[in-house]
Amino acid sequence: MINKLVGRIRQTGAPIVVGLDPMMKFIPEQIQERAFAEYGETLEGAAEAIWQYNKGIVDAIYDLVPAVKPQIAMYEQFGIPGMMAFKKTVDYCKEKGLVVIGDVKRGDIGSTSEAYAVGHLGKVQVGTKICRSFDEDFATVNPYLGSDGVKPFIKVCQEEKKGIFVLVKTSNPSSGELQDRIAEGRPLYEMVGEQVAAWGEECMGDTYSYIGAVVGATYPEQGRILRKIMPKAFILVPGYGAQGGKGADLVHFFNEDGLGAIINSSRGIIAAYQQDKYAAYGAEGYADAARAAVLDMREDIAQALENRG
Amino acid sequence: MINKLVGRIRQTGAPIVVGLDPMMKFIPEQIQERAFAEYGETLEGAAEAIWQYNKGIVDAIYDLVPAVKPQIAMYEQFGIPGMMAFKKTVDYCKEKGLVVIGDVKRGDIGSTSEAYAVGHLGKVQVGTKICRSFDEDFATVNPYLGSDGVKPFIKVCQEEKKGIFVLVKTSNPSSGELQDRIAEGRPLYEMVGEQVAAWGEECMGDTYSYIGAVVGATYPEQGRILRKIMPKAFILVPGYGAQGGKGADLVHFFNEDGLGAIINSSRGIIAAYQQDKYAAYGAEGYADAARAAVLDMREDIAQALENRG
Repeated sequence: MINKLVGRIRQTGAPIVVGLDPMMKFIPEQIQERAFAEYGETLEGAAEAIWQYNKGIVDAIYDLVPAVKPQIAMYEQFGIPGMMAFKKTVDYCKEKGLVVIGDVKRGDIGSTSEAYAVGHLGKVQVGTKICRSFDEDFATVNPYLGSDGVKPFIKVCQEEKKGIFVLVKTSNPSSGELQDRIAEGRPLYEMVGEQVAAWGEECMGDTYSYIGAVVGATYPEQGRILRKIMPKAFILVPGYGAQGGKGADLVHFFNEDGLGAIINSSRGIIAAYQQDKYAAYGAEGYADAARAAVLDMREDIAQALENRG
Repeated sequence: MINKLVGRIRQTGAPIVVGLDPMMKFIPEQIQERAFAEYGETLEGAAEAIWQYNKGIVDAIYDLVPAVKPQIAMYEQFGIPGMMAFKKTVDYCKEKGLVVIGDVKRGDIGSTSEAYAVGHLGKVQVGTKICRSFDEDFATVNPYLGSDGVKPFIKVCQEEKKGIFVLVKTSNPSSGELQDRIAEGRPLYEMVGEQVAAWGEECMGDTYSYIGAVVGATYPEQGRILRKIMPKAFILVPGYGAQGGKGADLVHFFNEDGLGAIINSSRGIIAAYQQDKYAAYGAEGYADAARAAVLDMREDIAQALENRG
């Protein structure tokens, strides 16, 4: 799956993942109204609105980008119907040829992480049969419980040729409270980065490992250091756009080959029509606005990579 | 909700939470067969087996214990049908008067944690209506992203009078890799414990805070230290039984008032019939075996508390 991701990045020229994080305030009125007319102002109605909204965006951008990243929390908050919208979104994006990164940030003790791993990336045994549950291509994993919470994911990745992105240095303002603590002379995120590099050596695709890392665009200096610590790891970079990361901040996350990083933008793309810059599209044109925002983001990253020293 | 938890612990004399972590290998053949006969060897069949198994256990133990803790991973692995079994289990346990601790270990950047918080503990807005999704009483929370990933949960807890247990020192063998790192002269788990204590001061029930902590029974020495750092926090203690924790290890987690801790046992209770000690119950008697195991565990803890120095 890492080979597919690399191949699609090369083909599209866009090291971009579109974050499908559908907050209700992003969803155009007309979509909400149609969904509520059919299902009422219920969890089912919310889930239908999310699904229709996502479908519009995916149809508008699937040929431009290699991957999407649905944030499961935005679906889970609407209970079972929300989870059904998540599953429908995952399946639809895969049909469209997109690589699907489930942003689930799961992680637990060994036997429990195993359940998450098979549920999101692998298969479960039911009696004599094998079933697949959420079946994303990649998942994000929280390392706070240590390696026995991560290894069950790695095992499933090896079996399935899928991948994970381990949280190393997250994009949010308070990420440093734990992640930047200096222990044995270096910050915790460097130690986690070293672990990612070590795990990754057992999990190589053609040029990159399928054990990757999450490092926020909001921390370019840490990105530069982690890029060196984990030369074969793909870095999933959230925090571009709405959270403040800019194109020029991103160059440190890439290797010399112009690969090794994939930049996420969520509201900057899916709610582009709410920005002044794309306001002319209007709510009806939200999907076209998303397409325009992807093209601008691709250009911003290409420029930044071209101008790097 | 912390007052309800404390009240029920006093009433039952059992500072015990039963972990509803239904692995397929725990579920008696006859239950699996009935479920598969009706739904096939499908995710729906697995979910039905889980639900029937849980119901049997809950009916056998609800009068003896204050709380249950379904581990969502064990349901999530079976996709949407599994999540429906989770929701059904949560609702049924609440009907039976049990406090429900959703062991979800969620945690993300601020706006995303907010979605998890409302989805598991609070309410979501859909159009003009208010809906509730999973609606547990407590949830477990992963602190790796720092305080802006935890605060949205605290806000919902304050609104709903519900609670969280923050992962401080987990029970698994590799928990020390990150959690024990010495930074500024003390291990990371102490720092997180101090944060829990500080957050908890704004969230007091009658005698205990509704911001609690997870500390594994497998680390009694750390439990003793954390007990002092967080005097008003309830400690949720996993790792008793199957993971190796013993009654005598538990005393350090309790305060002088005999309160302040609630001990989890999962397979030690729900799969008791598979142990030599309770083998006489047989698979048909799995629920009675669970009841017997709860009574033995209550006695083990009471003895340990009585014998403490």
